Amino acid sequence: MSLLVVGSVALDSLETPFGQRQEVLGGSACYFSTCASFFGPARVVAVVGEDFPQEHLDFLASRGVDLAGLVRKPGRTFRWKGRYEFDLNTAHTLDTQLNVFADFKPELPEAYRDSEYVFLGNIDPDLQRTVLEQVRAPRFVACDTMNFWIDSKRDSLLRTLRRVDLLFVNDAEARQLSGEHNIVKAARRILSYGPRAVVVKRGEHGALYFSGSEVFAASAYPLLDVFDPTGAGDSFAGGFMGYLARSGVEEPMVMRRAIVLGSVLASFAVEQFSLERLRHLTADEIRGRYAEARQLAHFDDLEDDVLGTER
Amino acid sequence: MSLLVVGSVALDSLETPFGQRQEVLGGSACYFSTCASFFGPARVVAVVGEDFPQEHLDFLASRGVDLAGLVRKPGRTFRWKGRYEFDLNTAHTLDTQLNVFADFKPELPEAYRDSEYVFLGNIDPDLQRTVLEQVRAPRFVACDTMNFWIDSKRDSLLRTLRRVDLLFVNDAEARQLSGEHNIVKAARRILSYGPRAVVVKRGEHGALYFSGSEVFAASAYPLLDVFDPTGAGDSFAGGFMGYLARSGVEEPMVMRRAIVLGSVLASFAVEQFSLERLRHLTADEIRGRYAEARQLAHFDDLEDDVLGTER
Repeated sequence: MSLLVVGSVALDSLETPFGQRQEVLGGSACYFSTCASFFGPARVVAVVGEDFPQEHLDFLASRGVDLAGLVRKPGRTFRWKGRYEFDLNTAHTLDTQLNVFADFKPELPEAYRDSEYVFLGNIDPDLQRTVLEQVRAPRFVACDTMNFWIDSKRDSLLRTLRRVDLLFVNDAEARQLSGEHNIVKAARRILSYGPRAVVVKRGEHGALYFSGSEVFAASAYPLLDVFDPTGAGDSFAGGFMGYLARSGVEEPMVMRRAIVLGSVLASFAVEQFSLERLRHLTADEIRGRYAEARQLAHFDDLEDDVLGTER
Repeated sequence: MSLLVVGSVALDSLETPFGQRQEVLGGSACYFSTCASFFGPARVVAVVGEDFPQEHLDFLASRGVDLAGLVRKPGRTFRWKGRYEFDLNTAHTLDTQLNVFADFKPELPEAYRDSEYVFLGNIDPDLQRTVLEQVRAPRFVACDTMNFWIDSKRDSLLRTLRRVDLLFVNDAEARQLSGEHNIVKAARRILSYGPRAVVVKRGEHGALYFSGSEVFAASAYPLLDVFDPTGAGDSFAGGFMGYLARSGVEEPMVMRRAIVLGSVLASFAVEQFSLERLRHLTADEIRGRYAEARQLAHFDDLEDDVLGTER
């Protein structure tokens, strides 16, 4: 497999009802590549500053992540500071310091240009296309975005969408992007923009997948404790794309398993701050929660004689 | 099967973004008994006024509903007037006229006292227990409630809950009743109040079922058009209890099918105003949507070799 991710590497400061952390490892590329690493190595395109701790790079390398495309630039690393309220659904940004991320121009090492699977993390859609243009013949391209780009760079985002196979969005973003409140109509509209599949993430309510006439609903694993929702979406994408790249086929049942695995990885990521839970996560734990997800959603056929005859 | 329902019979006036209706058939007992009627007859305990149209009684009778416990009292029928905003999730009550419902004292005809399955619709929890006291040996009792009773008659509601097998609530009610925000903790707390099972309805996000260590997540069928959410909860309960009473066993897989059928009946109920969609619904359509729900939620086991070896 060859899986490429472009995104952020960040130092996050977080406040949740359960505690706080200062300058811990974060960023879409870190969550994504760590989750994908359970299935195979990912190639990272990102930028950090001179102050970025070597121990974080050592951790990613220990997960088999390819860091040839991670450049260190003069200046400070991207920092994000956020607070979550009691319901943990909405992140309130308290401070954003782009630092070296402000001038990020993704450049792929020559060895990355043959990547088959590509994940365009939530960055400026202009930059997302810059990455795509450097990949020779991508087989499957997935992309993330957010309300900020939908609002401020809609035309550029639509140009990116014409070139991707799958879009990850949450339900609010799906509504904003499509102008449709009904989520089925929103998904159909988004498919008309170019992607052949869309995954609508609904947090604790799971995820919906739409592609042609195919619809799949994955329930989220109901968690007793959610500590830190940061990185849930990128963990979902990492599990999804890691599995997809490992499988090497994009048939419907593979996509369904990929969505459940994405949901499983996200469910682990939110159990502790930063990437702490992912650091000591095992393949057996992923298998176990996948089996629980099957048990959670399973029901069988209806008996023949249980509905009354037509009146 | 012998299935009893106590609840309201109402004339509803509705405003939705898609249109409005004046004084159409409504009320928990009507939605419940009509949905249950696909599986077998239900016995109704309710009250109407002198002005209640005979055609509505004829319709219920045509569905095999037993109306021996439906009394007609001097005065006007219960009326509810509500408006739904664009998101269709929240009902805003514009007017409530209790009329004959204000002095409702549920009295069971002698023939109803052997009922095995009982649904206590969303009425004063004092009255719910009055009904239970008239049933000789109920086998399975389910109950609905709402924020008004949780707030104003909490002690009485807790007394009712000690005597029921299953509680239907939506997620906001589950949180209000338990004082727990996390839905898993909320469900566990509610189970400690007495019921051996709880169904948490989440509207377009489906439903969760908790009983002991058993958890089941049913996805809602994603609908293109939702016209009128009135009666969705009672339709869910009607499909659930109708199927359960017909099955006659309360084993885990039966409960799972019952939840999916409840979700299926609710999905039809909201497609048109009042009970209009249910009037011309067929058993084949119910079977068809159940099959679609299976397809919607289905995914298979993970391959053995897809996760990397432990690092």
